[in-house]
Amino acid sequence: MRIDIITVLPEIIEGALHTSILKRAQEKGLVEFGLLNLRDYTLDKHRRVDDYPFGGEAGMVMQIEPIDRAISWLKSQRHYDEVIFTTPDGEQFTQSTANELSLKENIIILCGHYKGVDYRVREHLITREISIGDFVLTGGELVAAMIADAVVRVIPGAIGDEQSALSDSFQDGLLAPPVYTRPADYKGWKVPDLLLSGHERKIEEWRHEQAVERTRKLRPDLFK
Amino acid sequence: MRIDIITVLPEIIEGALHTSILKRAQEKGLVEFGLLNLRDYTLDKHRRVDDYPFGGEAGMVMQIEPIDRAISWLKSQRHYDEVIFTTPDGEQFTQSTANELSLKENIIILCGHYKGVDYRVREHLITREISIGDFVLTGGELVAAMIADAVVRVIPGAIGDEQSALSDSFQDGLLAPPVYTRPADYKGWKVPDLLLSGHERKIEEWRHEQAVERTRKLRPDLFK
Repeated sequence: MRIDIITVLPEIIEGALHTSILKRAQEKGLVEFGLLNLRDYTLDKHRRVDDYPFGGEAGMVMQIEPIDRAISWLKSQRHYDEVIFTTPDGEQFTQSTANELSLKENIIILCGHYKGVDYRVREHLITREISIGDFVLTGGELVAAMIADAVVRVIPGAIGDEQSALSDSFQDGLLAPPVYTRPADYKGWKVPDLLLSGHERKIEEWRHEQAVERTRKLRPDLFK
Repeated sequence: MRIDIITVLPEIIEGALHTSILKRAQEKGLVEFGLLNLRDYTLDKHRRVDDYPFGGEAGMVMQIEPIDRAISWLKSQRHYDEVIFTTPDGEQFTQSTANELSLKENIIILCGHYKGVDYRVREHLITREISIGDFVLTGGELVAAMIADAVVRVIPGAIGDEQSALSDSFQDGLLAPPVYTRPADYKGWKVPDLLLSGHERKIEEWRHEQAVERTRKLRPDLFK
């Protein structure tokens, strides 16, 4: 798949796209990223992409013209399944959104910044609005990087051990059970004996019980 | 305030900490960031910080020793109000968490990576577990950057125009109303006439109505 990200601050995202799983997924040919600097699509000679809001509110608003030009240019290159805008009043991003987006061919993510984007962008150019949660960020850049990470992570082959993604929290509707590694005793804090016992079936049962118990205690809503 | 972030992949976060609002907040002396590479705190000669999980599960687990050493070193330098771990089964991060954390003096954020951290870290070294949402990421680095952004943004003086943060979504329990900027007519898509009218009071009323109406339609749960 291909993910194109339109932003005024590509430097926030670059590190994330070129590190770890996202880097390796590109090397394996599982995903391609495009990072578009919105300022390259404005006709303004000072490369401005924002202006004061109509009606005199505080803050600056991203203009429709450069955004329309950037999206149109991308669409002239290939078909896109979704043009996503990251905004705190969009649909809540969850693991199932990530799973679903991982099946798409090409997507565009527009990162909001400043006070927001001209509302006509959202009415006419965007196909899907996604929120990462009930809080406000300086811009949508970290959200776009996070969506890319969550989506690419579930493409088969992207992480070394697929079993690992399948046993993550939420993939089976339960929180993950506790994990432990060496040393078995650290400053008197010990790993549960069972995990050192080699009883595979009992360990599997213990893990499932822990997952159910933790979910019941911490996130009873996941059982609804 | 001071925010120290412990991670195996500092390169994911560096861009975000040195750009835009977070950069300016540091220049203004409102916040200091520390970015600790966990590998600098291991005694392992290959700088390894992870190992296989006990009980034979897939994936790798972050070891307690380097984490304990990194946190202990930080605590030898100053007092910390919270040692936060980013994990999908933690408490849900919201705007009120951001507001609350912005009043702290010093916080540590430990970024999870791989399959997770040795559970003893969570039992003995962490004071608060925060989730950004119901989905799984490759690591907590983007979450830590996001927490830093949301928190620093509400420190008085961090963003140029404080009025702008106060009218953000969620600060008054409502979604933000639509915003528009020049041109007033783009390809026949027009800005609402009222916003061009100069009637301040009517514009204020319209904004409030829009905020209430959008919240009722998109997020009725915010009224509960």
